[in-house]
Amino acid sequence: MSNIFGTIFRVTTFGESHGPAMGCVIDGCPAGLELSLSDIESELTRRRPGGNSGSRDESDTPEILSGVFEGKTLGSPITIIVRNTNQNSSDYDHLKDIYRPGHADYTWDAKYGFRDHRGGGRSSGRETLCRVAAGAVAKKILALNGINVSAKALTSCDIEKLRAEGDSAGGIIECTVTNAPAGLGEPVFDKLDARLAAAVISIGACKGIEFGAGFAAAEMKGSENNDKPCVNEKFTTNNCGGILGGISTGQDIVFRAVFKPTPSISKPQKALTKDGNVKEIEIKGRHDICIVPRAVPVVEAMTSLVLADFLLLSRSSKI
Amino acid sequence: MSNIFGTIFRVTTFGESHGPAMGCVIDGCPAGLELSLSDIESELTRRRPGGNSGSRDESDTPEILSGVFEGKTLGSPITIIVRNTNQNSSDYDHLKDIYRPGHADYTWDAKYGFRDHRGGGRSSGRETLCRVAAGAVAKKILALNGINVSAKALTSCDIEKLRAEGDSAGGIIECTVTNAPAGLGEPVFDKLDARLAAAVISIGACKGIEFGAGFAAAEMKGSENNDKPCVNEKFTTNNCGGILGGISTGQDIVFRAVFKPTPSISKPQKALTKDGNVKEIEIKGRHDICIVPRAVPVVEAMTSLVLADFLLLSRSSKI
Amino acid sequence: MSNIFGTIFRVTTFGESHGPAMGCVIDGCPAGLELSLSDIESELTRRRPGGNSGSRDESDTPEILSGVFEGKTLGSPITIIVRNTNQNSSDYDHLKDIYRPGHADYTWDAKYGFRDHRGGGRSSGRETLCRVAAGAVAKKILALNGINVSAKALTSCDIEKLRAEGDSAGGIIECTVTNAPAGLGEPVFDKLDARLAAAVISIGACKGIEFGAGFAAAEMKGSENNDKPCVNEKFTTNNCGGILGGISTGQDIVFRAVFKPTPSISKPQKALTKDGNVKEIEIKGRHDICIVPRAVPVVEAMTSLVLADFLLLSRSSKI
Amino acid sequence: MSNIFGTIFRVTTFGESHGPAMGCVIDGCPAGLELSLSDIESELTRRRPGGNSGSRDESDTPEILSGVFEGKTLGSPITIIVRNTNQNSSDYDHLKDIYRPGHADYTWDAKYGFRDHRGGGRSSGRETLCRVAAGAVAKKILALNGINVSAKALTSCDIEKLRAEGDSAGGIIECTVTNAPAGLGEPVFDKLDARLAAAVISIGACKGIEFGAGFAAAEMKGSENNDKPCVNEKFTTNNCGGILGGISTGQDIVFRAVFKPTPSISKPQKALTKDGNVKEIEIKGRHDICIVPRAVPVVEAMTSLVLADFLLLSRSSKI
Repeated sequence: MSNIFGTIFRVTTFGESHGPAMGCVIDGCPAGLELSLSDIESELTRRRPGGNSGSRDESDTPEILSGVFEGKTLGSPITIIVRNTNQNSSDYDHLKDIYRPGHADYTWDAKYGFRDHRGGGRSSGRETLCRVAAGAVAKKILALNGINVSAKALTSCDIEKLRAEGDSAGGIIECTVTNAPAGLGEPVFDKLDARLAAAVISIGACKGIEFGAGFAAAEMKGSENNDKPCVNEKFTTNNCGGILGGISTGQDIVFRAVFKPTPSISKPQKALTKDGNVKEIEIKGRHDICIVPRAVPVVEAMTSLVLADFLLLSRSSKI
Repeated sequence: MSNIFGTIFRVTTFGESHGPAMGCVIDGCPAGLELSLSDIESELTRRRPGGNSGSRDESDTPEILSGVFEGKTLGSPITIIVRNTNQNSSDYDHLKDIYRPGHADYTWDAKYGFRDHRGGGRSSGRETLCRVAAGAVAKKILALNGINVSAKALTSCDIEKLRAEGDSAGGIIECTVTNAPAGLGEPVFDKLDARLAAAVISIGACKGIEFGAGFAAAEMKGSENNDKPCVNEKFTTNNCGGILGGISTGQDIVFRAVFKPTPSISKPQKALTKDGNVKEIEIKGRHDICIVPRAVPVVEAMTSLVLADFLLLSRSSKI
Repeated sequence: MSNIFGTIFRVTTFGESHGPAMGCVIDGCPAGLELSLSDIESELTRRRPGGNSGSRDESDTPEILSGVFEGKTLGSPITIIVRNTNQNSSDYDHLKDIYRPGHADYTWDAKYGFRDHRGGGRSSGRETLCRVAAGAVAKKILALNGINVSAKALTSCDIEKLRAEGDSAGGIIECTVTNAPAGLGEPVFDKLDARLAAAVISIGACKGIEFGAGFAAAEMKGSENNDKPCVNEKFTTNNCGGILGGISTGQDIVFRAVFKPTPSISKPQKALTKDGNVKEIEIKGRHDICIVPRAVPVVEAMTSLVLADFLLLSRSSKI
Repeated sequence: MSNIFGTIFRVTTFGESHGPAMGCVIDGCPAGLELSLSDIESELTRRRPGGNSGSRDESDTPEILSGVFEGKTLGSPITIIVRNTNQNSSDYDHLKDIYRPGHADYTWDAKYGFRDHRGGGRSSGRETLCRVAAGAVAKKILALNGINVSAKALTSCDIEKLRAEGDSAGGIIECTVTNAPAGLGEPVFDKLDARLAAAVISIGACKGIEFGAGFAAAEMKGSENNDKPCVNEKFTTNNCGGILGGISTGQDIVFRAVFKPTPSISKPQKALTKDGNVKEIEIKGRHDICIVPRAVPVVEAMTSLVLADFLLLSRSSKI
């Protein structure tokens, strides 16, 4: 298991979907950062399901257990927890010995020999709540440095139609970081794009990422793809997505990530069972028909965690 | 800087393109693995430029400095170095105060205030030699477990035409891992796909990666994208690319990575200078017109490093 | 800040003495370990102050927030919290701008520019509660492998006399690990004794550690200090403390650690003030007159964390 | 195996005593530090055996393979190697199946199932050469900050008498760091004293360490042990050894480490054999009769590595 993320600004997350609580511990946040509960709440609210998403809704009330004193971070670990309050664990009783298609049920059993089948356990989408809580703290550091992280969905779908069909949809999210200084990223193995890729693809359901021109670069010539400079260290194009050699250029950092359709669908489908057979199932419960809108703040959170860490690391680049 | 990769099977690489040597140190390779110089040489040979690639060619003769005794690994660090022998550093004299488009020259100066301008220094494509040397050791571990890693170019281009134009091309590489057991990968943050993404995107010029159906999943419904099971824990499709919830399913692991066109082109282009002006340059020297064929063994190497590390980590999944 | 300990079995601890809660998150505990609240409670009880220790007493009731399902560990992070319930924060109001002698007050301000002055904040002895909770889980792993960790005080003192004098005492704790297999420890830098030293000296008030013959070895000749072997891979002496070359020999692992006297004393003493002056103070509050008895389970906990981690790491020593 | 040390300033060392070379790679050294071969050579010379030490002597000529350009560090990994040139491997042929008392021979076989028996292989004292080379770079960083690290032997012995007896001696080394700023060290688990303890005890033959008053604190009362402040943030005593709560106070950092007698002695002694018997042996070869004088620069090197790392980490303590 690896539930720790980052080098200096290190986040540990925890929690199963139907366990007592979700949460995170942030180790390495510098002392003296102003931080309040509302900083966390506002980001958590963005992640909560919208009116017709179909998913389980909770108040997601955060509590800060440590690391903040008189409104400022102490330099000690910041712990945030959110109690789980709206579980319907019995919804999952009939799935105990079935591996839901597109989910981690089978692989989890293969790896650990054992799993919490209720709502996906640790591999539930609810796990992203911890990322958003931690990302809210990272965003405060970025804001102090004038850096903004903003993601949006590039695709849309007809949710009502999909609901009627008992089906689901995926999509693409684009994230743009503005005002990041040149010089962020740690070559060779912790290049800015390498770490962003790991951060974003570690979000459940994400199946790919591309920076700047991305996959389209395969069809370009060097003379087309090389960004054209103009004076004052600016560029007229941004095919590199704001990253060269794994280090930020000072341009906007731009990437796109693809999310697969929610695997939980009510339409009948075939599933493996624990004893090696195949059985037809319909997944009831409460599930997002399209995960993309709720993944937007999660993408921002992971991006913010990466950037905050690199900002702190960059303090050691020069003697 | 971060030149260390892995958790248990940890690789440190080093070397500038025109410095004395390139190399790697592998810490955490289990004792008792049979290893010879020819295991390293055969992979390094695959990375050497082909007849018309246009690039600098060296014999790339490896030397093992530590960690192997009587043909077997000791459990102590394995160090492999390759001397640089064919540098033409004077080729780069006129580029000392110029930031080549599409290269890390500008970002390196922004980060470190200083760089080795000769052949790209540490950010040279020659750095991948170290990855291939280390990957050769990882491949030996995988082979013992029956696991095979094989990459190939999905795209092609007319090299002679590009040479005549003074231009370059990129392309797409697909990598397939066969016979990997179910259960590899460490959720939440070190998911198999997250780590593979970081590993592959950390290769210079790589600008994107997708797993299984990848970006095409954005257009699919859940009922289409969910893989269809049949008995014996097999599946008739592999849209997930052999990974669910960040853990291998036992199917083939499949991903594609895009590489941008070589930024060094002899065609005239505009470049930023150190003093903030723009100047027209032609990059001579010896450069790959298309990096893709030589990136194939590098993709395999990085993939092998990730899998070897996860194989060792998986020994601790269960009590 | 660094509140994460371990390589595979990784523990993050958090909490200030007068904040809402103390706790720990264990990442990397193998799945399938039987674990109950009473396993934690029994160790926490050993750490609670005895009848005449003089210290603040709390019920220290643990709650498991994640990582355990149907009585067994899931492989996911195990989170344990204990609410702080018996703070008298006003006891510390008069110390807000004073650096108590022998405490971390001054160094904390120097490092972070800011501190939680109530009860020592993060540098309180109460922080060791988190270590004991995590150590309780590690002990379960050791028990499965037949390994026992047992510490005891080697020194004693007249507590009533010290109380009357308004003074305090330190002492020495000896820890013995029985039945550990040969082969634990990771040379060169993570030798078994190096890691144990870091683990134990990281406990507040610990000022030294020695293994086997320890400091007495400075007066011995090689012919005296070398342990004498007999058949069956046994030894008639244990000057090495069960560790050679940083790896366990299979003998008992034995070390002693020294703890300085509790710095909080009611006897008048001089203290630095925040504005650079010196002032006479008497520290009231509730403090252990001798920390040694309560440090015994903490030493065991840290030792257990080290050994559990090395047990898991040792699964990767050989191919 | 764990041959990587440090968090930001990370050192990987490698090499067996009778293999081709010893060396280190330093990852994370800031760019712009002036560094020359003579900086390394002068420290290596201090580690070389004196006239009558009895040990194998080599020229120990370092070569810098990467990371330095035009006399300054690049920010990329700095690699230093020293070729082994004066091995008498045949001296060890008769010890192939014998576990020398006090050495790592037995534990190495237990852990890895296999070892390089020539001169101790990786567990040779020659391994410390790599530490000294890396420490020389760390010392340059400290010097820029006005920090001085200086160790000395506290004990002495009659080497000629021991040589006549075929025996050996150990001793105690005291290390003092002057001019370190207040605020170094990362609580809770990477306290300055915890990391120094791990660093120094990881040196072969070191069996204990104590800070400030150390083990003598067990006999002191709190009123005696608490350091007495005077104005200007100075203290009239230094029982804490310059460290409170794991953070430097700005006083001298003082510790003592004990080294056991060299286990290789020519006097006849009993040894375990690989097949489980006991046999009398006399160890010839070339060995230090007392390791202490040569350990002095090694203690300084390890101390310098710890301090340089904490200096860089301290750049992230405050927002």
